[in-house]
This record gives sequence, C-alpha cells and structure tokens, in this order.
Amino acid sequence: MEKWRAADRLLKFSSSCKSKQGKYFYSVATTVHRNPLFSIISPDDISYFKTLLGERGVVQDALALDAANTDWMGKYRGSSKLLLQPKNTEEVSQILKYCNSRCLAVVPQGGNTGLVGGSVPVFDEVIINVGLMRNILSFDKVIVSGVLVCEAGCILENLISFLDDEGFIMPLDLGAKGSCQIGGNVSTNAGGLRLLRYGSLHGSVLGLEAVLANGTVLDMLGTLRKDNTGYDLKHLFIGSEGSLGIVTKVSILTPPKLSSVNIAFLACEDYTSCQKLLLEAKKKLGGILSAFEFLDSDAMSLVSSTTFLGTENHGQEVIKDKHGQDFTSIDLRALPLEFWYSYASGSIFMENLEAFLLHSVESGLVANGVLAQDINQASSFWHIREGLPEALMKAGAVYKYDLSLPLEKMYDLVEEMRVQIGPAAKVVAYGHLGDGNLHLNISAPAYDDNILAKIEPFVYEWTSKNRGSISAEHGLGLMKAAKIHYSKSPETVRLMIDFDYCVFELLPDTSCLDDNHSIICLCLSA
Amino acid sequence: MEKWRAADRLLKFSSSCKSKQGKYFYSVATTVHRNPLFSIISPDDISYFKTLLGERGVVQDALALDAANTDWMGKYRGSSKLLLQPKNTEEVSQILKYCNSRCLAVVPQGGNTGLVGGSVPVFDEVIINVGLMRNILSFDKVIVSGVLVCEAGCILENLISFLDDEGFIMPLDLGAKGSCQIGGNVSTNAGGLRLLRYGSLHGSVLGLEAVLANGTVLDMLGTLRKDNTGYDLKHLFIGSEGSLGIVTKVSILTPPKLSSVNIAFLACEDYTSCQKLLLEAKKKLGGILSAFEFLDSDAMSLVSSTTFLGTENHGQEVIKDKHGQDFTSIDLRALPLEFWYSYASGSIFMENLEAFLLHSVESGLVANGVLAQDINQASSFWHIREGLPEALMKAGAVYKYDLSLPLEKMYDLVEEMRVQIGPAAKVVAYGHLGDGNLHLNISAPAYDDNILAKIEPFVYEWTSKNRGSISAEHGLGLMKAAKIHYSKSPETVRLMIDFDYCVFELLPDTSCLDDNHSIICLCLSA
Repeated sequence: MEKWRAADRLLKFSSSCKSKQGKYFYSVATTVHRNPLFSIISPDDISYFKTLLGERGVVQDALALDAANTDWMGKYRGSSKLLLQPKNTEEVSQILKYCNSRCLAVVPQGGNTGLVGGSVPVFDEVIINVGLMRNILSFDKVIVSGVLVCEAGCILENLISFLDDEGFIMPLDLGAKGSCQIGGNVSTNAGGLRLLRYGSLHGSVLGLEAVLANGTVLDMLGTLRKDNTGYDLKHLFIGSEGSLGIVTKVSILTPPKLSSVNIAFLACEDYTSCQKLLLEAKKKLGGILSAFEFLDSDAMSLVSSTTFLGTENHGQEVIKDKHGQDFTSIDLRALPLEFWYSYASGSIFMENLEAFLLHSVESGLVANGVLAQDINQASSFWHIREGLPEALMKAGAVYKYDLSLPLEKMYDLVEEMRVQIGPAAKVVAYGHLGDGNLHLNISAPAYDDNILAKIEPFVYEWTSKNRGSISAEHGLGLMKAAKIHYSKSPETVRLMIDFDYCVFELLPDTSCLDDNHSIICLCLSA
Repeated sequence: MEKWRAADRLLKFSSSCKSKQGKYFYSVATTVHRNPLFSIISPDDISYFKTLLGERGVVQDALALDAANTDWMGKYRGSSKLLLQPKNTEEVSQILKYCNSRCLAVVPQGGNTGLVGGSVPVFDEVIINVGLMRNILSFDKVIVSGVLVCEAGCILENLISFLDDEGFIMPLDLGAKGSCQIGGNVSTNAGGLRLLRYGSLHGSVLGLEAVLANGTVLDMLGTLRKDNTGYDLKHLFIGSEGSLGIVTKVSILTPPKLSSVNIAFLACEDYTSCQKLLLEAKKKLGGILSAFEFLDSDAMSLVSSTTFLGTENHGQEVIKDKHGQDFTSIDLRALPLEFWYSYASGSIFMENLEAFLLHSVESGLVANGVLAQDINQASSFWHIREGLPEALMKAGAVYKYDLSLPLEKMYDLVEEMRVQIGPAAKVVAYGHLGDGNLHLNISAPAYDDNILAKIEPFVYEWTSKNRGSISAEHGLGLMKAAKIHYSKSPETVRLMIDFDYCVFELLPDTSCLDDNHSIICLCLSA
C-alpha cells in the first residue's frame, strides 16, 4: 500500500536542509528530511496559478512570504517561495489537484497562530491560505436554530461580533481570536475559554466541507443537530491538523446570547481548594458557569510585572478588591488564583452568584476575591488571563507545553518540574482548570539545550504515566508529531495510519515511498 | 482491494433465504442474500466456544434464541442458532478472532431495542451480546470531574440510578433505558431526551475500548476532556452501528445533579407558535432548559385513548391544568403540544420559569399549560411522552421514520404525508423539537404494501430535498442501509467504504467477494 500520504508530504524530505531546520525547533523534535520526490516550483507552475487565481491570489513578495514562513513564536521557519490565496472551494480544489499531479508539497495555513509548528512550511511547500474565503453564507436566527454557515477563512473575532449583533454567541473563544480563522480552529480542534460550558468543537460543529489532497470536494456541510446515517466522517477532520484535507466551509451551532455576564477573580490558598471550588461551582451554579480558568502566583507576578498590562492601562485597578486591598500583595504563597465567568439571565443569578461567593469565602475555600462591577472590569479580568502568552513571549525564551491531566494530579507536575529545572528557569502555570487543561510554560532568559534536556522527555513521560495527553488543544504539529505514542496506543496509531492511506488512496501510486510512517505533520493552524 | 468488510458480512448472503427474509422488512428494503462464503456453525465451533466461555456463555436454547433473533417491533427476524455471552474484553477478542479465522458471520447485540433492524441477525449470524459485561469500572466524583468508566453491557437505567446516588446525572436518557445498554447507545449514537441540553454522545463520550473484527483490541479509553493527539478515532465508532467493531468499554462525562427539576406541559395553537416558544425559551431560560419535546394532537389522542395510560394510573389526572380544566378537551385543532423540562438550582429558577410561562401565555404563544407541582406529576408528564412508542405498537401496524429536518419545515412533512396517505392510515408526529428531530409514525390496522408504497420513497425524497437526514438518531440498520445516498454525498459514501476497508484490511484477503458495496448493516443496538 504505497500511496501518497499527508505525513509523507512533509516528513520525508531531502537531507540537505536537515541541520538547519533542526535548529529552529526549540524542542526535542524528530529531525525531518525533505522528500526528494517532491517537485520544485517552476515558472510554468506560477503561470498556471496566476491563470487560475489571478495576480492577487499568487503571492511571491519576500516580506509577505517571510511572515507566512514564520510561526507566531518565531520558533518554526520554512522557506516557501509561494503563497496561494484561493477565493472559493473550486479554486482550492483546482490548486490541490494541480499540486497533486505535479508532486508539489503543500501546507494549509489559517491565521498562523498555532504554537506547535503545524501552520508553517518546514521546507519549500506551497502555502495555501484560505483567508480570502471569509463570507458568512447563512445564519438562521429567524427560524430558531442558531446555525451559522461560513467559509473557513472567517476570522474568529469577526464571527463573534457578527453573532453578538444577531443576539447569539460563538461556542468558541480564545486569545488568538483577532487573527485565527474558523477553518484553522476546526482543523486543530481549538478548545479555548468556553469549552467548560459549550463543549468541544466535536459537539458544536454540525458540518464541514473539505477538499482532499487530490482535489475531491467532500460535502459534509449539514446543518442538522442529529444525523445518524453512516460514519460521521467530519469528526476525522476536526483536529486532524489539515493532514487529511483542507477545511473550506464550516457549519456551527451557536447558542443564544444571554442577558448577563458576571466574572469573579478569586484567590485560593492552595491547589486543593481550587479543585474543591470547581466542584462546588459546578454543583451550585450549574448551567450558568461558563469558564473556570486558573493561573498560579508565578503567572500572576509575570503578567503584573510586564509593561504589557501597564501600557494597556490595566493592572492595579483591576486587581484591587472591593475594599481597595491590593490583590497582588496578598501572600498567595503557594498557589493558584482562579478566574471564572458566568452567563446568566437576570439579576436573580447575580444574587445566586454573590451567595455562592460569600459561602466560599466563609468556608475558607476562597482567600480573597473580587466580582466585576461592570463590563469594563470584567473584560480587564479576561485581559489578564489572555495576556499571559504575550507576557511570556516578552519575558524571553519560553518552552510551552499544553497538557491534559487528571485534575488531582495537575499541579503535582508543576511542582515536580520546578524541582527538576532548579533556578535556571521559571515554571509558570495557567490554563483551563474546568477542562483539566494545563498550560505549562518554562520561561528562561534564552533558549538553552541544557534546560530543554531537563524538560523533555521528562514532561512527556510524566504525562503518559498519569494517562494524560501531551496535547490537550494545540495539536501535534511538527513539535510533537513523533511523540504521539506517549498518548495513543500502537493499535490506535496503526489505524490512524491506515485511515490516512484511505484518504489518499485515490491518488496515483508511488511505490517508491518508504514505509517509515510518522503521523501528521502539516497543520491548518488556528 | 478485496477485503472482508462488515457490510459484506451480512449483506451478501446466499439467495436461498431471499424471499422469506424480504417479507419481514415492512419497508422498501434492499433484498439481501446470504453470502455463501460464510461458514455454517459446526459442533467443533460449539466446543471451542464452550471451552472459551463456559456453558453459561454459549446459549443454544430455542426460547432465548427466538428472543435474540427478533427485534423489539417484531419486524426483523433472523435464524441464528448461537448466542455468545462474553464476560470480558479478552473473551470478545477471542470470539472475534476465532469467527474471523472460521469465516463465521457475527452480529453484535446490546439490549435489542433498536428500531431499524440493526440489532438482530438477518440470517444465521452468531449473536454476540455483551450484557454480562456490566461492571462500573471507575467513577471519580471525589476528584471533581464526574467521569464514569464502565463496561459496554451496563443497562442505561442502572447507570442513571448509580449516578443519581452519587449526585450526578447521565447526559443521555431515553424511553428504552430499562433495557438498552450503554455500548449499544454509543454504537448507535443514541440521542434521546437530553440532547438539547447536554449535546450528543460525540460531545460527552471521552473514550472507548473497541474490538475489531480480527480480535484487535483498540484502547481509546481516555478520561480526559481534551486530547488533540492525532485523529480522534473514537468518533468513527460512535454511531457506526457495530460495523467497525464491538464497543466493550465506555468513558463518559457526567454533569453534577442539580437541585431542582421542573416540567411544564404546554399547548400551542399552531406549529409556528411552537417554534417561537422554543426560541424564547432558549433565550430566556438559557442554561436551565434541558429538553423541549413535542407531540401533536393525533399523538396526544392516541396516548390518551390507549389502555396503556389507564393501567399505569396516568392520564386524566396529569392532563388537567391548575384550574381543573381537562387538557385533552381543549381544541388543539391543528397542532402540537409542547413539553419541556428544566434543571435548576434553587427556587429563584422556579420564579423565573413561572414568569416566563406567564409571559408566554399573555403573548399568545401558549394556549394553555400546566407546570408540574411535584415530582410525581413531573414523571407523569414524561410518561406520556415516553409511552408513545408502546401506544403506537398497541394500536396496530406502525411505519416509523426518524428524521432530522430544518425546524421551519418539519411540520410541513407531517401535513403533506396526511394528504399523501389519505384515510387509510393515521399520521402521528412527535419528537425532539429542540433538536429538529421528528418521529414520524404512520399507524394502520395492519401492514399493507399499498400504504408502504405511498410512504416510500416519498418520505426519503422529501427529506433529501430539504437537506434533512433520513436517520436522526435510530441509525441505518437493515432498514435504511441502502438509502444512505438520500442523506450523504457520493464522495462521502465512497470514503466511508474506504474506511470500512481500512478497519478490515488486517484480515485475510478473500478476493472472491464482489465489489457491490453497501454501507453498514450490522448494528450493536441500543
């Protein structure tokens, strides 16, 4: 079964670029080689694409290419000479059909906000960006169901604004919303801030349109909540990081906007209290709890100390409690703050919320806290949480790990990592406590192989031993493609490889590819 | 690519049983033939299974086999001579490995409550029932997350009771809960009564263990809310009706039980009011709305007139309103009643609910209604809704269709079907309005090919034309296996066939099977 495979397309490259590429990973990644079977772009190819897409759709400008070749963190860098910008599904299909016939490697790219090296070329792949496909195709608020159908290139924040005007909300929200595209969100199964309440995209995406590598358009763009006719193939495309095809349209169920939003910013003495508070909040607040985030004291110090908050005029004002006490000065000796968020309908929920908070303080679960008094203060609270990735970037080098762990073990890893690393770097932890998702960051003045050696494979082995996942929401990308076995059984990986073959079996045989399978490399990034 | 395939296993049978089997379908089903490549069970096979499973695990008793050969509605009937009852995953694996090596056809069976002929043998397949695998393996209420891990044979109602004692609830509830098994629920992607609030099993199932046809055990039994490492293969098993493998263990996220449950039973003058009420309820009640069912006046008459309600001492008492007015006597001339259900935490929600109802009555959306005054009355309301399938069975022959339709079109089909059928049969409609899921029933004194000819293919063509699904939650089974093209595009069906090959590609080549693919026949029924 020697077929073209997505993973082959990028992972089996020629050895010429080997050492150079390896340097850019900042992670113990498998060294990859350019597959010499892939063609080099020719002037004829460029002519073909210009005829197909027009001048605007064929980008060769050095500055634009540099941006598209480099990931958000500046860690992963390709050397593509061509960025294509199709305007519709038919053009995506034609591009892929042509690239397939010419053996040109491709990488789909969305907003290029991914953190695992999945959204940029590794070598000289043709970059396909669906950012010009940004039409909202339908929204049926009149007939009740709240189903939004749109093209894959729509920016998440634009969809959020559109829905807000219509009286609905996106079930997905994340820090990168200003740049990331919905097609990338779906392809990477982005989790974000509202997963606790609205669940994952596997629950809210009702349908997809995707184009396979040979140009076949797969219409799975249903708008129904229930459809049990055959295998639900769209789920394979959700989170497959572009390796099975390019998502071109999305149909998503959006809940109606509710009338009130309240946010509290709370301090707990230790991690156990955080866990207990989560259970209490789930029980007492039920359906109105929509997010339960956390950040530890190192994260809080970092975000408070960077100029980032200062320049935006956030900071001290939002982290004082009702009595004017400075929040940051509280001795949070050990551990996390919490952060949560609720939608509700009417002031009765506010009373309920206040009663819950009062009880939590009286019972000792919460050491201190503040409930947002207006929408500005509420958005300042989110600003602190969402500002963390940028604050970390400004602080120097950062090794980022996105882990799912059993809730009761989650913070043990943070503490063990601090011991493991010693004084060479700072361990900063935050994440989506309500989902069991830890964002573990090791912040150092500069990238250093000695630090990396202390982190990996320790972090992966620890996660695997505790039946966690080495990628909760960021995906595998190039960073973790070869590390899938830490989270998935050999039989499961084998079946993924088989499925990967299935999707590509329509393509011409090339029995010269070797059989050294590596799962998933290219990635339509959020 | 001539491999064993699940669909081949049952759909390509010898012609000897053709006419006899055809008679049992009560639907315009493809006539199927027993594939002569499948072996006939031998005494040696029986000896092997007795050694493997013990006497208890090998059922040859005529009465027990008759029950296992016949589906819940008595429409679909097989002639299996052997029912196997494994006690653990290893035994399931050994059974399948042996059957595969001996070319014995198999059908997985759960509680045998499915409605589409998916849970019973078509000919003489070996029935594998995992009902003895009914252990709850873990439940982590202490550490907050509410993740239940259990074996596939657990009866849904037992899980609901277990969770109730622990202070949690199943995200899934349906009328067949007393018999159906969680493995069957997952394999058929059962929807049920709480989907509106808790979403589909694609959202709440966190992990699965499944055994492929060659005996390979696939460990996908994660308990994490988020895991983006490779393709999320478990989704292929959710709703694939046992055709890709037998589900043996399930990990499912369960929400905490909330302190209050309120149910209202409301009457609307027309279908448009029902739709509007749904939107209002979603907006005003937000997170506390957990079900929004509907039944039309013909359904209401039927369930009121059958002895079923009388014998259970339900009926008149629950369908009087607060002022003692008899609900059934209201002139509901055209259309549906509604029925909804809410969980909430505290009496403030009750006030909110009452205010909402009052406003709905004043604005004319609701013609009349009653809010349950206690838990008994609330459960009586559900009893009416859940009693409908049984009431229909008692009323004579019934042609059942389980459709997803755009909400605004849903009731048009019911009215057009009434015109189409004329006086020969009664069209009874109910379903999950909140999910866009219509259960369309044509009730007649006896099964009649003339009536059937008026229903099919009309109902499928109408559904397809309006971009609905011909199976919202029941699955395809034998009834609709050959009708998948009404809801899925040719490219999508083609990919399903390819995936089906993938799963079975580990099995020995048998290049004598023909290439006339039909998707999905066997079904691990709920």
